[in-house]
Amino acid sequence: MSSTDERLDEFELIRRYFSQPLVAADGVALGIGDDAALLEVPQGEQLVAAVDTLVAGRHFLPSTSARSIGHRALAVNLSDMAAMGATPRWATLALTLPEADPQWLEGFAGGFLALAQQHEVALVGGDTTRGPLTVSVQILGTVPHGTALRRDGGKAGDLLAVSGTLGDAGAGLKFARETPLSSDKSIQQLIERFDFPAPRVRLGVTARGLASAAMDISDGLVGDLPKILHASHLGAHIEVERLPISPALRAVAAEEEVRQLALGAGDDYELLLCVPPVKWQQLADAARQLNLTLNIIGELRAGSGIRWTLNGADFAPRVSGFNHFG
Amino acid sequence: MSSTDERLDEFELIRRYFSQPLVAADGVALGIGDDAALLEVPQGEQLVAAVDTLVAGRHFLPSTSARSIGHRALAVNLSDMAAMGATPRWATLALTLPEADPQWLEGFAGGFLALAQQHEVALVGGDTTRGPLTVSVQILGTVPHGTALRRDGGKAGDLLAVSGTLGDAGAGLKFARETPLSSDKSIQQLIERFDFPAPRVRLGVTARGLASAAMDISDGLVGDLPKILHASHLGAHIEVERLPISPALRAVAAEEEVRQLALGAGDDYELLLCVPPVKWQQLADAARQLNLTLNIIGELRAGSGIRWTLNGADFAPRVSGFNHFG
Repeated sequence: MSSTDERLDEFELIRRYFSQPLVAADGVALGIGDDAALLEVPQGEQLVAAVDTLVAGRHFLPSTSARSIGHRALAVNLSDMAAMGATPRWATLALTLPEADPQWLEGFAGGFLALAQQHEVALVGGDTTRGPLTVSVQILGTVPHGTALRRDGGKAGDLLAVSGTLGDAGAGLKFARETPLSSDKSIQQLIERFDFPAPRVRLGVTARGLASAAMDISDGLVGDLPKILHASHLGAHIEVERLPISPALRAVAAEEEVRQLALGAGDDYELLLCVPPVKWQQLADAARQLNLTLNIIGELRAGSGIRWTLNGADFAPRVSGFNHFG
Repeated sequence: MSSTDERLDEFELIRRYFSQPLVAADGVALGIGDDAALLEVPQGEQLVAAVDTLVAGRHFLPSTSARSIGHRALAVNLSDMAAMGATPRWATLALTLPEADPQWLEGFAGGFLALAQQHEVALVGGDTTRGPLTVSVQILGTVPHGTALRRDGGKAGDLLAVSGTLGDAGAGLKFARETPLSSDKSIQQLIERFDFPAPRVRLGVTARGLASAAMDISDGLVGDLPKILHASHLGAHIEVERLPISPALRAVAAEEEVRQLALGAGDDYELLLCVPPVKWQQLADAARQLNLTLNIIGELRAGSGIRWTLNGADFAPRVSGFNHFG
């Protein structure tokens, strides 16, 4: 590090690279610079809080750009807000860095802030420490009292639907490892889906009062579906042929590999929604207004366990969900 | 790792070692286990949010016990709430671990939870990831609207006071490095002050409406005092002979070293308070009710900069504050 960097203190570091959100933001009575931030939760709303960490070598590749890391660190947290139907409002950032590299910081802050501005989220606190690259973001949002989309609200007979397409980010990660500089348009699109996931925040807000339960798919459908079933004390039937697949993924992988990625790969950050049949059309129409596709992939059933079928025949997914300690 | 540990997933890890706060806690509508927690901010109160990270090799020694790391990770955040005069309510934990060692986790969770229970703080969210040991805690508290102790409220003529004694934790860190197994009572006390700091949460709440500004001393008085002066647009006069020193520190170090530790060493997590003279007696009495001593060490002055004196003569502190990127 240069002698200039050695004098960078925590506050200066944050101020220099994260200055944009320091302007007055909605509900921020006091932002970065004191011992803590002072925030105003709108009356009649509940606070929604989550935390997610990205670790170098575990959640991104050595070749991943700083801009992507900044984007993803916030995106995975925004996705938790989407899964609750909450409006994200504020974030704090705990950033552990091996060194204060200005170029890296500029890219990281750029990726983080562009997404923050898109969702009108203010960065209200931060802690920078020296050590192996680790990024923890805590996200705070609000939701009108009693309207949050929880995992335990599913009912037998609810349709199971997912937003967007599945398996793209998993394929993107594979190509980012193997052929990061490919000029193939489909491969570039898939890598982009891994590097810059789009959290479904507006869909989550829209689904309040329509979906009975929701979660985001971060660890893959096979890994995540049991969590919502466990919370709702239900089983499910999934028709594997209905999993939504993007043209890009179909273009670059064989059918069996496509299926495995759609079932097991994580990092898509699409929403998994439980929807009473009478609410389905309204929710699908609302999603279309957001330029998003919702696809029914199965339904919730009384009992426990998952029945997977492929074109009517029983099917056994070979993949297992992503596990941070697996 | 054993094959059992390999199957530990994030939720199971948290549930197994952090189960106590999963019981219903004040203001927690939905705790760990969904995509995010749902929390109730009392009407008329502002939300107070901060984040602090501990990194192995930077904020604690390789020899530091897991119990101390768990305690300190929460304590440094509670200290931020104390500095705002806020009541801490909820915390989330981002824990990056090289491996899921049950013995380490039990100690860490024990230290974290004992302090959480003492302050009635509920752990409402967590993310465990594999990587170099890094602990980020995000603390959430509340404060009646407009009563928070900010750094920018100081007025010329306010007394500057500190709680407890200064320099103990700095000495404790030194002894923990050099003579960790010493049987000397004073040395043990000082190491304890580093390993298990007591955040001044009740004092912070008590100081609302009495102090005009406050912060916690985490990086040492010389490093931290300028921050409150900068925020309040003021200077200060500090009488160095008035810095409160513990008998334990006096017993183990020479006068000049004691002074340097009290001025420059961090990690004491005492409060630095700006107090209008007319409010002083009331605040000092209130502190005494909490079994805490407050000591006047100087006063705020118009202008900028700090005049340091020792028994009436100008004095130049040689130490500089702790800087994470220094």
